[in-house]
Amino acid sequence: MTDAPAPAPRRRPGGRTARTGQAVHDAVRALLAERGQGGFTGRDVAERAGVHEATIYRRWGSLDTLLLDVAATVSRLNEDSPLPDTGTLRGDLLTWASAMATDLEGPEGLGLLRSVLAVRTSGDERADRVSDFVYARAEAIQRVLDRARQRGEAVPELLDVLERLVAPLYFRAIFAYRRPDAGLAELVDNALAAAARE
Amino acid sequence: MTDAPAPAPRRRPGGRTARTGQAVHDAVRALLAERGQGGFTGRDVAERAGVHEATIYRRWGSLDTLLLDVAATVSRLNEDSPLPDTGTLRGDLLTWASAMATDLEGPEGLGLLRSVLAVRTSGDERADRVSDFVYARAEAIQRVLDRARQRGEAVPELLDVLERLVAPLYFRAIFAYRRPDAGLAELVDNALAAAARE
Repeated sequence: MTDAPAPAPRRRPGGRTARTGQAVHDAVRALLAERGQGGFTGRDVAERAGVHEATIYRRWGSLDTLLLDVAATVSRLNEDSPLPDTGTLRGDLLTWASAMATDLEGPEGLGLLRSVLAVRTSGDERADRVSDFVYARAEAIQRVLDRARQRGEAVPELLDVLERLVAPLYFRAIFAYRRPDAGLAELVDNALAAAARE
Repeated sequence: MTDAPAPAPRRRPGGRTARTGQAVHDAVRALLAERGQGGFTGRDVAERAGVHEATIYRRWGSLDTLLLDVAATVSRLNEDSPLPDTGTLRGDLLTWASAMATDLEGPEGLGLLRSVLAVRTSGDERADRVSDFVYARAEAIQRVLDRARQRGEAVPELLDVLERLVAPLYFRAIFAYRRPDAGLAELVDNALAAAARE
């Protein structure tokens, strides 16, 4: 274990534990952006964050769990950001999907997605963090759908939007055979077409 | 490292290296079925296969790379198995998707998928193995589509079938919010509807 020199911590509310948590999260996001998922170790994170490696394992247990924690946190931050409000469901979904595609084209977004996909979803507490990741996205979509329904638009079900819009975006990002934002309008229209079935 | 007792190797053509490779692959598939992805180490594989742990790292480099090798091999085996031939594209895709859903519901199939999804697809030789995994499936679908086109049916593009049928199945298996085989006919019909656009 390396005794990395501690840089001056950024001052944030919440005391020492919160500051350490923030520094470690920042380090993970920086390393994901630079090297991608799988390109760094717990020791790299500790050095970058200026904390002891043991602190990371004591708090998160493993690098995988830490990555999931970062993924869930980023999801919640995205959920708190303003939802698109273009006046039509089609416009809102296009804007939302475009932002998601941009996110997935970067190494940080793709690295976080891979971290989530790699984890078993049953049998341990990490399953909750995987759920956090996808539920934060589902929540945002649901609010866009609810608003459209209030305007009187025909609205597909949440699961249809997840499977017809989000699943293909993940698939493109993971298998990298085309850019996630290629033909987004077609994906959105196919999700909207599910409303006609009801 | 444990010096595990070597069980009598199954006799297969190809000599000692091939037999070792087969024993290691069999061990990985057994451990995936029993414990799921993430539930075992390289040492567990070595003990189960009756080989030295060092042999595994010398040949595959890491447990991740070994898992990808197993995934690509299983994909190629699936590709060699008979394609459904029901007389209609809809029937063929339903049969094919149903077999895939069954595969994804088991711990071995899901574990192999997670292993593939977790790996970065650029920058190292492991990317080729990820491509093997998805291309073997794409090849099978393409042959089903080609046969339907020869019969004179309206046929969607391969990418549409991947994104409208395979991507949702993966998404369901990974996030476990519904069984992969729920409403398969609806997924197939949505894939077929893409043909109408052309």
